[in-house]
Amino acid sequence: MNDTDRAADFSAGAAWVQGRYLPIAQATLPLTDWGFLRSDAAYDVVTVWDGAFFRLDAHLRRFRASCEAFRLQPGRSDEEIAQILMQCVRLSGLRNAYVEMIVTRGQPPWGSRDPRQAVNQFHAFAVPYVWIANEEQRQRGLRMQVSDVPRIPSASVDARAKNYHWHDLTRGLLQALDAGFDTAVLGDGAGHVVEGPGFNVFAVDAGGRIATPDQGVLEGITRQTVIDIADALGLALQQRPLPVQELRAAREVFVTSSAGGVLPVTELDGQPVGSGAPGPLTRRITETYWAWHKDPRYSRAVDYGGAP
Amino acid sequence: MNDTDRAADFSAGAAWVQGRYLPIAQATLPLTDWGFLRSDAAYDVVTVWDGAFFRLDAHLRRFRASCEAFRLQPGRSDEEIAQILMQCVRLSGLRNAYVEMIVTRGQPPWGSRDPRQAVNQFHAFAVPYVWIANEEQRQRGLRMQVSDVPRIPSASVDARAKNYHWHDLTRGLLQALDAGFDTAVLGDGAGHVVEGPGFNVFAVDAGGRIATPDQGVLEGITRQTVIDIADALGLALQQRPLPVQELRAAREVFVTSSAGGVLPVTELDGQPVGSGAPGPLTRRITETYWAWHKDPRYSRAVDYGGAP
Repeated sequence: MNDTDRAADFSAGAAWVQGRYLPIAQATLPLTDWGFLRSDAAYDVVTVWDGAFFRLDAHLRRFRASCEAFRLQPGRSDEEIAQILMQCVRLSGLRNAYVEMIVTRGQPPWGSRDPRQAVNQFHAFAVPYVWIANEEQRQRGLRMQVSDVPRIPSASVDARAKNYHWHDLTRGLLQALDAGFDTAVLGDGAGHVVEGPGFNVFAVDAGGRIATPDQGVLEGITRQTVIDIADALGLALQQRPLPVQELRAAREVFVTSSAGGVLPVTELDGQPVGSGAPGPLTRRITETYWAWHKDPRYSRAVDYGGAP
Repeated sequence: MNDTDRAADFSAGAAWVQGRYLPIAQATLPLTDWGFLRSDAAYDVVTVWDGAFFRLDAHLRRFRASCEAFRLQPGRSDEEIAQILMQCVRLSGLRNAYVEMIVTRGQPPWGSRDPRQAVNQFHAFAVPYVWIANEEQRQRGLRMQVSDVPRIPSASVDARAKNYHWHDLTRGLLQALDAGFDTAVLGDGAGHVVEGPGFNVFAVDAGGRIATPDQGVLEGITRQTVIDIADALGLALQQRPLPVQELRAAREVFVTSSAGGVLPVTELDGQPVGSGAPGPLTRRITETYWAWHKDPRYSRAVDYGGAP
């Protein structure tokens, strides 16, 4: 391998940019890439837990669908992408990692405003595993604000195609943090909740029926895993619009994200959800979620033995 | 000046990144800056024409307002920003330049998801003047498609705060280019046009009355200049919602952008606008727009004499 500096320190994370592996702190994007100047990019995040990728195939499939939605070309096969991600993790030595793959538009020749004339660029990195909730929050449950900021509608930017248009999510998050909450869930402006900064949301009603929004949301892989878990455990689960009032009346609420898995929400706008403690169904699904990380159907081991 | 490599070639453009002046091709952003990974950034573009900035004060004022809307801190005064922009232009030697100032969120400490813990970063660059229409298009007028992609609503992301959330604009542009048009104007999903990729839109009715949308649009400095020109020339101009049907029935249509000034639109969805040639009012406003570039009220000369 000629494209890696073996003396470099990758312990804080490793990136693949412009055809080279670099320590994460040295990984950069040209300032003039439209991936930045127009947020013209698609991405995906997969995790490594205890030395194995979780549902890598599903993430690669969704990444390709996101790229197609925005007419971006990764310029390599799924297996080639998998090998680059694998090498980033291997170089970092991380047993638990947050691994991101990205395609940016690149830049058309100077003077052109035609996105079709740009050469798209592929980037990737592996960094230590990221939790959207810290340990205290995971124990007691998240305190969530129901934001009055409406999520960007899918008619404008398809939420199913994973993208960096986060100003609405960031505004909701900042308002929630300022008000003393841990996070925020955004709505569709028509009385339904949709998603929050980096997560999908689920509500469990008094009868133990689970619901999660199906419109205007990213179809999260962790969300899909919960749907699969519900199926495996024989739990009733519906994908459908979720009115704010139904969320408020829920016995249990939880959120899902590759950055933390299944996380309990125990307060909404200062009011306790159910008993105010993480609920039994949330706990059961969380346990199954982590158990499945050992399941060969979903996991793919990282070979840390050395670079090829 | 210790922060510039004097042997470097800045002729293709100069940037200010991480406290240094660099040739544009060497200017980069850390891959992990949330300005990229969450498009958590604000920006503005001012132009230099014939060796002088045009309405620099107005651009600096709007830039600060955009930063405040997104709670981003440039970390320097307007005059300090002006000096950096000035130096980028000076180093490039460009007499006609497209000059961009940017603040990105930066990155919170690893593990934190709190935007308030990030140190915001200021960036700037000067490159050769950009035209959103090439010379042929400026002569014959733009062929525009009225896109069915709705612009991101301001309730989600305030269009008045200049930002990089362009996926909707890019999708409209790609559809228009594929269909053989030069560009696209997006709507609000409720029967009005709003704005296109990098421009505001104006319609002139049979009575010579001018209208431009006032909701869900960037309040362009070139748009404001046209409003000021209309006032100076005694032309009737209204800022109000602009129904698509009114645009279609217009005698003249033009768009405004810092990247090209005032540009005629002579076809809408394949139908001629008015006579099908650039109209007299568009021409008169365009002439005044360029004449004002010499007006000391609006221009600030670049001192190319040498670095301080």
